[in-house]
Amino acid sequence: MPLPSQMHDDIPATPVIPEIKPVGLGLPESVVARINQILPKPMDPIEQSKKFAAYKAVDNHVKPEDRVIGIGSGSTVPYVVDRIVQQGEEVNKGRVFIPTGFQSKQLIVEAGLTLGDVDQYPTIDVTLDGADEVDHALNCVKGGGACHLREKVLAEAAKTFILVADHRKNVEYLGTNFAPGVPIEVVPFAYAKVLQNLHHILGSPKATLRMAIKKAGPVVSDNGNFIIDAPFSREYMLDPYVIMAQIKMLTGVVEVGLFCKMAKAAYFGNPDGSVTIRDLEGHTETIKAEET
Amino acid sequence: MPLPSQMHDDIPATPVIPEIKPVGLGLPESVVARINQILPKPMDPIEQSKKFAAYKAVDNHVKPEDRVIGIGSGSTVPYVVDRIVQQGEEVNKGRVFIPTGFQSKQLIVEAGLTLGDVDQYPTIDVTLDGADEVDHALNCVKGGGACHLREKVLAEAAKTFILVADHRKNVEYLGTNFAPGVPIEVVPFAYAKVLQNLHHILGSPKATLRMAIKKAGPVVSDNGNFIIDAPFSREYMLDPYVIMAQIKMLTGVVEVGLFCKMAKAAYFGNPDGSVTIRDLEGHTETIKAEET
Amino acid sequence: MPLPSQMHDDIPATPVIPEIKPVGLGLPESVVARINQILPKPMDPIEQSKKFAAYKAVDNHVKPEDRVIGIGSGSTVPYVVDRIVQQGEEVNKGRVFIPTGFQSKQLIVEAGLTLGDVDQYPTIDVTLDGADEVDHALNCVKGGGACHLREKVLAEAAKTFILVADHRKNVEYLGTNFAPGVPIEVVPFAYAKVLQNLHHILGSPKATLRMAIKKAGPVVSDNGNFIIDAPFSREYMLDPYVIMAQIKMLTGVVEVGLFCKMAKAAYFGNPDGSVTIRDLEGHTETIKAEET
Amino acid sequence: MPLPSQMHDDIPATPVIPEIKPVGLGLPESVVARINQILPKPMDPIEQSKKFAAYKAVDNHVKPEDRVIGIGSGSTVPYVVDRIVQQGEEVNKGRVFIPTGFQSKQLIVEAGLTLGDVDQYPTIDVTLDGADEVDHALNCVKGGGACHLREKVLAEAAKTFILVADHRKNVEYLGTNFAPGVPIEVVPFAYAKVLQNLHHILGSPKATLRMAIKKAGPVVSDNGNFIIDAPFSREYMLDPYVIMAQIKMLTGVVEVGLFCKMAKAAYFGNPDGSVTIRDLEGHTETIKAEET
Repeated sequence: MPLPSQMHDDIPATPVIPEIKPVGLGLPESVVARINQILPKPMDPIEQSKKFAAYKAVDNHVKPEDRVIGIGSGSTVPYVVDRIVQQGEEVNKGRVFIPTGFQSKQLIVEAGLTLGDVDQYPTIDVTLDGADEVDHALNCVKGGGACHLREKVLAEAAKTFILVADHRKNVEYLGTNFAPGVPIEVVPFAYAKVLQNLHHILGSPKATLRMAIKKAGPVVSDNGNFIIDAPFSREYMLDPYVIMAQIKMLTGVVEVGLFCKMAKAAYFGNPDGSVTIRDLEGHTETIKAEET
Repeated sequence: MPLPSQMHDDIPATPVIPEIKPVGLGLPESVVARINQILPKPMDPIEQSKKFAAYKAVDNHVKPEDRVIGIGSGSTVPYVVDRIVQQGEEVNKGRVFIPTGFQSKQLIVEAGLTLGDVDQYPTIDVTLDGADEVDHALNCVKGGGACHLREKVLAEAAKTFILVADHRKNVEYLGTNFAPGVPIEVVPFAYAKVLQNLHHILGSPKATLRMAIKKAGPVVSDNGNFIIDAPFSREYMLDPYVIMAQIKMLTGVVEVGLFCKMAKAAYFGNPDGSVTIRDLEGHTETIKAEET
Repeated sequence: MPLPSQMHDDIPATPVIPEIKPVGLGLPESVVARINQILPKPMDPIEQSKKFAAYKAVDNHVKPEDRVIGIGSGSTVPYVVDRIVQQGEEVNKGRVFIPTGFQSKQLIVEAGLTLGDVDQYPTIDVTLDGADEVDHALNCVKGGGACHLREKVLAEAAKTFILVADHRKNVEYLGTNFAPGVPIEVVPFAYAKVLQNLHHILGSPKATLRMAIKKAGPVVSDNGNFIIDAPFSREYMLDPYVIMAQIKMLTGVVEVGLFCKMAKAAYFGNPDGSVTIRDLEGHTETIKAEET
Repeated sequence: MPLPSQMHDDIPATPVIPEIKPVGLGLPESVVARINQILPKPMDPIEQSKKFAAYKAVDNHVKPEDRVIGIGSGSTVPYVVDRIVQQGEEVNKGRVFIPTGFQSKQLIVEAGLTLGDVDQYPTIDVTLDGADEVDHALNCVKGGGACHLREKVLAEAAKTFILVADHRKNVEYLGTNFAPGVPIEVVPFAYAKVLQNLHHILGSPKATLRMAIKKAGPVVSDNGNFIIDAPFSREYMLDPYVIMAQIKMLTGVVEVGLFCKMAKAAYFGNPDGSVTIRDLEGHTETIKAEET
């Protein structure tokens, strides 16, 4: 029985000119939903508004001179990539795109853009990302997808960090719609100690370890860590920076899914097709559907 | 603001005699379903039969002189632990129990048994574990929970490896009921190459990366790896050793969820309350409900 | 050719009564320096003083009622374990010992003590550990061995945290003898961003990634992360809490090897055989060699 | 105290046109030995011969139509990259280079070539890599740098795999000069079981866990695993495929540092400046220094 590692001997010695084609992470076609296929359907208003929010965000913040661009995740981000592609091959040829995770890596590769990583490009010109919830002061909760460590590195490494999301994420205070609580990435052996700290000292008696569905035991993050979901009462969320810093200081905590005062602006797509833009200075502007 | 790492200064200098109580992995009470609570309910026949299968397996294979015991996972394993506890404190005092994962670690701790790890006890007297499917020759598929690497180490390190499961796992050939295919643990950067090998060389054109539900992107195993689910047609499953060896030989593959000729016997609980016992020599015996 | 995974079939079906003997992590005898062999040599004064420092620390802080005990690493720690063993089998039978790493796991197993982990016992009665340097206020630098994350979890989880070291670690200000700087554990993809933060914002222009000798590329910690060594000038080390908190707050930083105001007391063995004891309140006491 | 994650607010809102410059992994200049600086020194014969070996290998195997190229590690590889750069910007513009590790990633970035990863490009046109030892049949030992898993993935994914090394690696049988033995990457919790298998079943009684120097405890690979070094006697090395397959089949083994019949040719630089070329068919050719 010829074992597989010997089998490649049979490959012809003079290969024909190979096509250079990234395999788009090797996923089945059904999963690799190609951007083009996603976009052109007759859109309902909410999809339209997400698209316009993303387009507006790109138009306002991704300048021709920006060369290193962070691409986040979420249902609005495909439109971000779409709009960047529309800026033209010429401008995109010299750019490098840094993904926050598996989905955005996919989007970048599918769109034919050049992939880079933050260990090579620790300064990013602009990062655009989604969020699980954004409050009036542009603080946000992220981590429903357990990617908030990489997302925060890309946010912190960016000169400009922009949020794009649908209207449900637009809240007065964090915790309004997003029920599971603040996602906290912890090293596995420290999770019980951190849970104890959260329950008894930091005011989240219902913090729990996130359990997986497609594997036994807890969810494991892309960094090999566990995730705790810690709900906090309204008073903590009035100014989430304090509780964020307290949690991050706990030994064993790798990163907290609260992004405080990091975003410069947030773009929300509304159900009526309009786009709400909010900036760090507290200005809010809503652009009607017909104007987008 | 006193940051958390300073806070323990306030703990009184002369602690009262502390109670030594493992926190059972710090999970909420609801999750830490205590064994006693699980067991005594008025049982339906299938639960009864799983219990009797587990009891029979323990009675036949966990001898008083066995000191290092591997405890697997699955719905039948709580009964295994229950029966071991019934062997008495005296005999269990000198034993060490090695878990295959999070659930069995929980069970061992909750039952007050002593936990050990396979890096200290690389030779195990007997390991009892569940399976996703077991064929007529005691080959089995494991890895629905993505724990098959640790499970296989404990199976291979054991002098005696015993399977306990319910009747749905009892099949003539692997792949009869368990549809997703053979779980394969791969290092993340090699998954696309391994998928390609599976699709084009090893005969599993529908092999896919297992995607997570409670996180973005693929499932990550407790070892930080990805999982591929590779279905194979019946002809491969007639004698699964060959395809198991071919997959394991692929560079980038960490472990294959096919356990070939490792088990000495399998115990199945049937819907009518009876127990079917099958051994490596091909003997099958069914014990009626009233005899169990 | 019978492949290894089939080979255990040949193991006799009725095993003789097995001896339960942890393999001490499976290391060659030469490495597994058994405690007895280490200790009884005719000791030079410095070894004597380390022994007496460790003995004093155990006598003063490991009470019979203490049940969960953290064991650290360093050249003084074998004497700590030695003294704990001398407290007698009766008292140690009900105790669980939590190691900070590979060496202390070894020591615990070799001494016949019961191993536990901090995910089961998130509250520790007393942890005794070494340090790379300890200042006048009991702040210390740890992480020369890249284990400071686990060490800090065990320090923070402990009601009482005690340092034991030789006199070279006893300094007025951190950075006096220990040249490489503060060890910082970072997630691999964020190391360049963190280096940039350290170089340009946090005042450590010479911070570097720690490179390995026995493997290519950077040192990888037991948690799969990289280590940055960041030297800081004296002014930062006058009160290291501030810089510690600033570094820990950086996204991508897992843990900082500065332990500020965590220890209750430090025990130093001096070259003349005496022991210096310093507590958190600033009291210093030196016990002469003849009195120890 | 403004904590670091708030600090980027001060960055001017309208950035000047940024220069796109990968930071070459953020290492200090001293470490980032730029290729140009390495190369032009007055060369001793052995360096000359390594250079000519690398040049010959590139000239013979890196065709203009090759688009996905794997770059390995070792002291000969900088010359490989140098020669590829000499093929011209035009041909390199459309190419993607896949590194086997930290050093080659560095080399690719420093040379201004485009970085890719094997999860995007699972089929590689040609991979050139070093080795710790190469035998008469082009079997080789790799893994002194603990990178052999990634190296083997890149070798196996390549249509053509070429070895470049200096003459000391050119041996009749493996184990002649390279004393530590075969490097084996294992999952941490299985290392003791695998050591036991190697000692008692597979014929390597002196196999040991590789201990680190710049951290406490064992070397941890870039994949978070341990490394065992297993020396085997001559008889095993006559045809190393069998022992390689037996080790790889062990549960807990991730990859074995024996590459059997994977290389199509090997290029060795000799001390007298000549180059020896050996191919898979057993042909050996030596090109004199004056002809290179």
